[in-house]
Amino acid sequence: MKVTIIGAGNLGTHLAKAFFEKGIVISQVFSRKKEKAQTLAQIVGADAISNLENIEKTADLYLLTVSDDAISQVSRQLSTHLNLSLVVHTSGATSSLVFSDYFSRFGVFYPLQTFKADQKVDFSEVPLCIYGKREKDQKLLLQLAAQLSQSVHAIDDDQRATLHVAAVFANNFTNHLFHISQSLLAEKEVDFRLLLPLIQTTFEKIKTQHAMEVQTGPAIRSDHQTVHKHIEELSGHPVYQKIYRVISKSINPKLDKL
Amino acid sequence: MKVTIIGAGNLGTHLAKAFFEKGIVISQVFSRKKEKAQTLAQIVGADAISNLENIEKTADLYLLTVSDDAISQVSRQLSTHLNLSLVVHTSGATSSLVFSDYFSRFGVFYPLQTFKADQKVDFSEVPLCIYGKREKDQKLLLQLAAQLSQSVHAIDDDQRATLHVAAVFANNFTNHLFHISQSLLAEKEVDFRLLLPLIQTTFEKIKTQHAMEVQTGPAIRSDHQTVHKHIEELSGHPVYQKIYRVISKSINPKLDKL
Repeated sequence: MKVTIIGAGNLGTHLAKAFFEKGIVISQVFSRKKEKAQTLAQIVGADAISNLENIEKTADLYLLTVSDDAISQVSRQLSTHLNLSLVVHTSGATSSLVFSDYFSRFGVFYPLQTFKADQKVDFSEVPLCIYGKREKDQKLLLQLAAQLSQSVHAIDDDQRATLHVAAVFANNFTNHLFHISQSLLAEKEVDFRLLLPLIQTTFEKIKTQHAMEVQTGPAIRSDHQTVHKHIEELSGHPVYQKIYRVISKSINPKLDKL
Repeated sequence: MKVTIIGAGNLGTHLAKAFFEKGIVISQVFSRKKEKAQTLAQIVGADAISNLENIEKTADLYLLTVSDDAISQVSRQLSTHLNLSLVVHTSGATSSLVFSDYFSRFGVFYPLQTFKADQKVDFSEVPLCIYGKREKDQKLLLQLAAQLSQSVHAIDDDQRATLHVAAVFANNFTNHLFHISQSLLAEKEVDFRLLLPLIQTTFEKIKTQHAMEVQTGPAIRSDHQTVHKHIEELSGHPVYQKIYRVISKSINPKLDKL
């Protein structure tokens, strides 16, 4: 198995290293920035290229780790050099159909985790969402993924699109609610860490239970008095008030007059 | 130190047991439901009463664990029997001023955690938010709390009100976002557990960092294309669309035309 990595950013670097450590040959590393390509190529024993004209056709897999916006353009450029090769991207937000004009064998290799440049990633726990347009390619990608992670999932375009928006709610938006909570407490010089055990409990619950069944708080109890008190408490923060109202109503549609 | 517990619900039961285990004497247990009072009283070696007329004046602390709505009424009834005693409630949502018409010595003993009837609680990790109107009483309450927990905090009414609304954002509302995420994924038969490593990472980050500084996702990146794709993806769920819009705008006010 020979893999060529297109893009030497965070994800490209982490994946190339992880493959290399598992004994998978990295054939070439491409980055428009020559130095970046060289740095990574050296680590994983690959050739560095900074011009797609120099791409070799001999790899078994071309793994695009470029930004979402660049996938289509890079594919067009690649297509003049590759045609019977398997090409995948690593994007949660991009349909595999982005490839359909350029390649006959394509798919997705999407790691569902955020990566930092300076932190080593243990891929064994990272869910890898795999799709191959052709059944044989999907099988190959699933096998490759299984060498990296214990959590490998066949996820089609439609499922991945939903997964991506679901991740925004469960991850990006919850983080913003933590920010709101932190900023409210900072104003009163209360330590946010007081809330950590409560948050931990909620997190433990949703590992095994439906969040709906463990919902607590004034909204689900139809505790109008507390809900109104909270909205008043937020009077200095009209945006937070709006969020409070919208989510409370979503928790309990019977709460009107919010 | 002798404590009388008013209310034999979840919290009353857990607190009475925890005090009892630490060698603190539980004098009486009150519940309107005689059987409930008796069950708990027996466990903690106390007398059971179901009529406040039978309350004894000799306890050092009267701990109200009744529902928020009942605090005022129970206080009025108690006030004819107690006047120089220390009375506290256990509510995050109620000002200590609820007591001011009835008692001269009052305060709050608020455990910041949810409790289930059937699960043993380890109070050592539960943040206890303490307030005493009189300094001496606050000191006594802090000492009592320190026998139960390593996480004891002097929190006044104003701070506790903010803490309560901050907990709604960080706990109740995040749980609802997990519910939205779960329900979206269930529709496409995708396992919610795929998101757990990502959620875990976010949770680990906010233990030590400002959530604002670790915010990720399309909104903070001003990635209009993905934001609009997500809103379209949610077309079958107008309430979720609304939540998506409101939180995205709060994350990044420059995202207009949502």
